[in-house]
Amino acid sequence: MTGSAPLSVAVIGTGRIGARHAENLARFVPGARLAAVADVNLPAAAALAERLGTPRVSADYRELLADSAITAVVICTPTDTHARLIAEAAAAGKHIFCEKPIDFDLARTDQALAAAAQAGVTLQIGFNRRFDPHVRRLAAAVTAGEIGAPHLLRITSRDPAPPSLDYLRGSGGLFLDMAIHDFDLARHLLGEVVEAHATGAVLVDPAIGALGDIDTAVTVLRFASGALGTIDNSRRAVYGYDQRVEVFGAGGQVTTRNVEIDNVMVSDGRGRHAAKPLYFFLERYGEALVAELQAFVAAVQQGRPAPVSGADGRAAVVIGLAAKRSLAEGRPVRVAEIG
Amino acid sequence: MTGSAPLSVAVIGTGRIGARHAENLARFVPGARLAAVADVNLPAAAALAERLGTPRVSADYRELLADSAITAVVICTPTDTHARLIAEAAAAGKHIFCEKPIDFDLARTDQALAAAAQAGVTLQIGFNRRFDPHVRRLAAAVTAGEIGAPHLLRITSRDPAPPSLDYLRGSGGLFLDMAIHDFDLARHLLGEVVEAHATGAVLVDPAIGALGDIDTAVTVLRFASGALGTIDNSRRAVYGYDQRVEVFGAGGQVTTRNVEIDNVMVSDGRGRHAAKPLYFFLERYGEALVAELQAFVAAVQQGRPAPVSGADGRAAVVIGLAAKRSLAEGRPVRVAEIG
Amino acid sequence: MTGSAPLSVAVIGTGRIGARHAENLARFVPGARLAAVADVNLPAAAALAERLGTPRVSADYRELLADSAITAVVICTPTDTHARLIAEAAAAGKHIFCEKPIDFDLARTDQALAAAAQAGVTLQIGFNRRFDPHVRRLAAAVTAGEIGAPHLLRITSRDPAPPSLDYLRGSGGLFLDMAIHDFDLARHLLGEVVEAHATGAVLVDPAIGALGDIDTAVTVLRFASGALGTIDNSRRAVYGYDQRVEVFGAGGQVTTRNVEIDNVMVSDGRGRHAAKPLYFFLERYGEALVAELQAFVAAVQQGRPAPVSGADGRAAVVIGLAAKRSLAEGRPVRVAEIG
Amino acid sequence: MTGSAPLSVAVIGTGRIGARHAENLARFVPGARLAAVADVNLPAAAALAERLGTPRVSADYRELLADSAITAVVICTPTDTHARLIAEAAAAGKHIFCEKPIDFDLARTDQALAAAAQAGVTLQIGFNRRFDPHVRRLAAAVTAGEIGAPHLLRITSRDPAPPSLDYLRGSGGLFLDMAIHDFDLARHLLGEVVEAHATGAVLVDPAIGALGDIDTAVTVLRFASGALGTIDNSRRAVYGYDQRVEVFGAGGQVTTRNVEIDNVMVSDGRGRHAAKPLYFFLERYGEALVAELQAFVAAVQQGRPAPVSGADGRAAVVIGLAAKRSLAEGRPVRVAEIG
Repeated sequence: MTGSAPLSVAVIGTGRIGARHAENLARFVPGARLAAVADVNLPAAAALAERLGTPRVSADYRELLADSAITAVVICTPTDTHARLIAEAAAAGKHIFCEKPIDFDLARTDQALAAAAQAGVTLQIGFNRRFDPHVRRLAAAVTAGEIGAPHLLRITSRDPAPPSLDYLRGSGGLFLDMAIHDFDLARHLLGEVVEAHATGAVLVDPAIGALGDIDTAVTVLRFASGALGTIDNSRRAVYGYDQRVEVFGAGGQVTTRNVEIDNVMVSDGRGRHAAKPLYFFLERYGEALVAELQAFVAAVQQGRPAPVSGADGRAAVVIGLAAKRSLAEGRPVRVAEIG
Repeated sequence: MTGSAPLSVAVIGTGRIGARHAENLARFVPGARLAAVADVNLPAAAALAERLGTPRVSADYRELLADSAITAVVICTPTDTHARLIAEAAAAGKHIFCEKPIDFDLARTDQALAAAAQAGVTLQIGFNRRFDPHVRRLAAAVTAGEIGAPHLLRITSRDPAPPSLDYLRGSGGLFLDMAIHDFDLARHLLGEVVEAHATGAVLVDPAIGALGDIDTAVTVLRFASGALGTIDNSRRAVYGYDQRVEVFGAGGQVTTRNVEIDNVMVSDGRGRHAAKPLYFFLERYGEALVAELQAFVAAVQQGRPAPVSGADGRAAVVIGLAAKRSLAEGRPVRVAEIG
Repeated sequence: MTGSAPLSVAVIGTGRIGARHAENLARFVPGARLAAVADVNLPAAAALAERLGTPRVSADYRELLADSAITAVVICTPTDTHARLIAEAAAAGKHIFCEKPIDFDLARTDQALAAAAQAGVTLQIGFNRRFDPHVRRLAAAVTAGEIGAPHLLRITSRDPAPPSLDYLRGSGGLFLDMAIHDFDLARHLLGEVVEAHATGAVLVDPAIGALGDIDTAVTVLRFASGALGTIDNSRRAVYGYDQRVEVFGAGGQVTTRNVEIDNVMVSDGRGRHAAKPLYFFLERYGEALVAELQAFVAAVQQGRPAPVSGADGRAAVVIGLAAKRSLAEGRPVRVAEIG
Repeated sequence: MTGSAPLSVAVIGTGRIGARHAENLARFVPGARLAAVADVNLPAAAALAERLGTPRVSADYRELLADSAITAVVICTPTDTHARLIAEAAAAGKHIFCEKPIDFDLARTDQALAAAAQAGVTLQIGFNRRFDPHVRRLAAAVTAGEIGAPHLLRITSRDPAPPSLDYLRGSGGLFLDMAIHDFDLARHLLGEVVEAHATGAVLVDPAIGALGDIDTAVTVLRFASGALGTIDNSRRAVYGYDQRVEVFGAGGQVTTRNVEIDNVMVSDGRGRHAAKPLYFFLERYGEALVAELQAFVAAVQQGRPAPVSGADGRAAVVIGLAAKRSLAEGRPVRVAEIG
C-alpha cells in the first residue's frame, strides 16, 4: 500500500450499516480516506461527518458522483435503489462497494452488473461473513483439503430478534433478506449450488405470517459437486446471534463456534454458567466489516478483481429466489430454473 | 424392586448386540437373571453362556419359549425374523424386548403388535438413545419448558464406517437401518411427525450406490406441532461416531455434544489437540443399553407400560418409509400417505 | 488371562470403599472371584455378601486369612489397622491390595513393607487416580515427550464437602488424608519430590481449625528433576468434586478437565448453562476403582510387580509428613528430612 | 464526555508500547487528541507521528512538558526514567499515565507519588489487565458475591518467549518485570496481600540463570482476608501467551480462559485440533490497552480518581520485592517487612 495515495471514498446512505462503514473507513482502512457522506436525511449525515471529521456532506449523492476527487463509493441505501445507484456510479467512473442484495429482480441486477462491467470499475458486494476470521480459517481448512472432499455443509443462522414489520414488508422475505448471507457463504465454501429445497414455518410471530413471510426455515441445498447442505434460520434466538458453520467431508470435519460476550465461567451449586453469544451482526462481524472494506480498497488500488464480485451477488439472489419458489410450490427447485 | 424375584430372561440371537444384552442382563440388571441364550450358531451361544455363567443354551429358541421358567425374551435375531418371533413369544406368554426395527413391512408389523396386545405381554423396542444420560437430560429440559416451545430440532448422526455390503444388502437402506434411530429420537423429543423430505447422495462408497442405497442423507421433518427438524446422516465419519442433538425453541436452545475417548488437551507449538469421539454405538451408548434393559425389567415387574412401545417401533418405521418414498419421488411425503 | 483359574479374593472391611471393591470384584474383574467378605459389623458384611452372591462372610478377618482357598485380600479397614493387617496377611501368604495410606508412622509402614517383602507376596496400594482414563492418557503424553521436559505441575483437588468432624479427628489431617492422593499423583507424573512447602488456612469451617487441622491448602513441590508443582486443596467445592491436572513443559502443556454429570448445554436469555462435575470420588473415579483391581489381579496372576508398590505408598506418606512439618514450621521442608 | 474539549495528550517514548498507546489515542479514545510524540530516537517518533497524522514531534520530552497546550502525558520510556519523568510532568501540571512499574526503588517511587499528589494531577499506572473484558467480568462476579467469600486465587501467566538477555539484564528480574502484572491483578481481585512465598527455577534457558534471574516461578500469596493465592510464571510457553485466572470461594468458582487465534475445530482421523492462544500481550490485551486510556481520559475530564492509582503501582512493586526476598532467603516474607 506504500506509495499509493489513499483512496477517496464516499459513503451513500448513513443508516446503521452506512454509519459503520463510514467509521471503519475513517479509522481502520489505512489505504482509504472518508471523503464525503451523503444521505437524504441531511442532519443525520452531517452529525456523522462531524463525529468522524469528514470534510464533505450532502443530501444528494449525485453531487458526490459528480465530484472527480472521489474515487469510490460505498452504497448503503435501501435495496430498491441499489441497481440504479450502481449504474449511476459506474457511469461516473466510481469504483463501487454495494451492500447486499443488489436487487431482487434479476433483470435489474444484470443491468447493474453490465453497467459496472462496461465502465470497467471494481464492484464488490457486501457479503461480510467471508471476511470473518473464524470463517476464513474454516474456508482455508476446506481449501487445503484438511477434511477431504466435502460431503455435508451445515449453517446455523439465527437472528436475536426480528426486524420491524415495516422493514419486513419491503425486505423480500426471509430468504432474500436474511438467508442470502448463508447462500453466499454456502457457495463460497462448497461451490455452485444446483438445487434448493426450502421448508418454512411461522413460529416466532404470527404477524410475520400475516405479511406472507416466514420466520423459521430449513433449506436443503445440493451442490454441483454432489455434496448436500442445510441452512437453518430463525428470526429470534433469545440467547443472541447464532452463527455457526460446519463442513463435513471424507477426511473429517471443520466447525466454527459462536463468539461469546466473554469467556468467563461461573461454577456454583446449580451448575456452570457462561456468557451469551454476541448480540448481533455489528458485534459478531465487526472485524469482518472492516476487513471487507480493506479488501475492497486493496483490490481497487492493486487493480485486482473484487473478492466478492457482482456475479457472486447475483448468484446468492438466484438461490434465494429458488428457495422462495421451493417454499411456494412445495418441491425442490433447480437453480437453473431461475436464471 | 425389593420383594420381586428376579425376572428370568432369555436372549435369542447372540451376535454383537445380543451378546452385549446378555452380558448386561448377567451383570447390570439387578432385577433380572440371564436364564438362557439361544442362537442357530450353537458354539457361539455356548461360549457366551460359559463366559457369563448362564445355565442354559440352545440352538433352537423354541425350546426356550416352551420353558415355563423363562418369563421374558430379548430378541436380537436378524430383522426379517422379528415379527414372527414376537408373535411366537407372545403366544408363549413371554414379555418381549425386541431390537429395532420390528419389520420393514407394516402389515407384518401390525400382526406382531396385535399378537403382543392380545397376549397381554409387555413389548419394548430397542431404541436405546432415549436412555442415554445426555439425551435424557436434554429431553427433560425440553419437557420442563427450559427452552420454551420447540421450533427446530437438529440431529447429527454419522457412523464411523459403513457396514459390509452384505449387511447393507438386507438392511432396508439407510433410512430404515440407520436413520430409524434418529426418527424415533425426533418423535421422542418433539412429538408426532407429519411430513418428511429426504435428500440423499452417494459420496462415501460407489458400491453402496450400486446396491441402490445411499450413504449420505439430509432429512427434513415437519412435526404436528409446526416445528421443523433436520437429520443429517453419513455412513462414514473418519473421526468417529458423531451423535449430537439440538433443540431450539422460543425460549432458548439445548444441545448434547459428542462423548470423547478422554478429556485430555495437549497444547503445543502447532495448536491444541484432543481426543476423538468414542468409536461407535457399543462405546457411546453403553450406559443406554444397560438402562433400556433395566427399564424393561422394571416395567414388567411393576406392570407398567414399556417406555418404548410397539407403537413407537411402528411409528419410526413409518417415518423411514416416508423418507424412502420422498427420496424416490423427489418431493416431501406426508406420513399419513404411508399408514 | 486365559488359562488361569480366577483368583479367589476376600475383602476385609465393608464400609463405603470396601463395599465398592467387593462389588467390582464380583462383577468387573474377570480374572477374580469374590470369595468372601469380612467386617466386624457382621450384618453389614452379610447384607453385602447376599447382594453380591458371595458364598462366605465373617466377622473375623483371621478366619479368612486362615482359609487356604483364599489367595488375595483387599484391605479396607480403618487406617490404623492397615500395617498390622498387611503383616498378618503377608504371614498367611496372601497377596494384598491395601487402601491408602499404609500408616501415618514410617516405622510401622516399614515393618509392613518388610513383612510383605519377606513373604514374597504382591502388595499394591489403592492410589486409584493413576488408573483414571484421563490421567492415564495425560501420563502417557508426558512419558511420550509430547510436551517435552516438564517444568510445572498443577493439581487441583477439592472435595465437595468435608467429612464429619469425627472422621477428621482420626484422619491424620488434610495432607495425609486428602492431599496424599495428589502427592502420589505428583510422583507418578513427574518423579521424585525433594522439597515441599505448604501454606494452609481454615476458611471452610472453624470447627476443622478447632481440631488443629486446616481445610484449605496450597502445597508447592520441588522435584528432583528441577521442575516445580503446586497442589491446591479445599474441603468444600460447592459445585462438586474438582479434579484437574496440568503438566506444562518445554514443548507444551497437557491437561485433564473435570468430568461432568452430563454434557448438555442450555442457552437462554441469561446465558449458557451446563452441568456440575460428578459429585465425589465414587462417581468420578468409578472406572479407576475397577481398573486398579484388574491391574492387581493381573499382576498377581502374571507374577509381575504391582503397578503401585508399597514403596509408592510410603513415599506419598513421606511427602505428606514433609508438608505437615512445613505448615507447622512455616518453611520449605526437604523430603530427606523426613525419612 | 459531551461538552468537554478533547484532552490533548502527548506520548513520551515511542517504542513498542508507546507506539501502541499513541495509535490508540489517535483512533480509539474519542475524548482525547494525540497532540505530540517525543522520543530520543527522533526518526522513529517522526515516522509514527506521520503515520498517525500527529502535528507535533520532538526529540526532547521537556519541550512537550513546557507546552501549555498539552494537558496530559503518557510515559513509555525505560523504567529507570519513570520516577523522574513523573516528577517533572507533575511539576509542569500535566496529568500522567505511566507504564508499570514506577520504579524498583521504593524511596524513588514515594518521591514520584508525592510529586504527583502535591501537584494535584491525576496519576494512573499501566496495569492493563484490569481492563480486559474477561477479567472485568470475573472481577464483577467476585464483587457481586457470585462465588461467595474467596478462598483461593490462581493466576497462570506465561509468556510465549523470553525477552532478550539485554532486556533481562535491566528488567529487575522475573518478579518485578513480569509477575508484577499478576501481583497487581491479585490485589485487584482479592485485596491486600500480607505475605509472599516464592519458589523459582531456571528451566527455560541457563543464560537467564547466569544473569542471576529465574525463568520459572511459583509464588504463593496470603491475603489479608485469609485467602491464599498461587501464581505460576514461565518465560516460555511454546503454545503462546497463557493467561488464565481462577477465583474459588465459599459459593463457587469463576474462571477466565485463554483467547485463541480463532475458534475453529478440525476433527480428523487423529483427533480434534484447534488454534493456539493469541501470541502475546499486544494481541491478547489489545482491547484492555484501549480501555485503560479511555478510563484515564475520563478520570481526568471528570475529576475522578484514576482507576489504577500510584499507590496501586507502589503496592505491586512491594509484593514483587517481597517475592524476590523470599526466593533469596527460602522463606515466606511478610509484605510489611518490605515497606
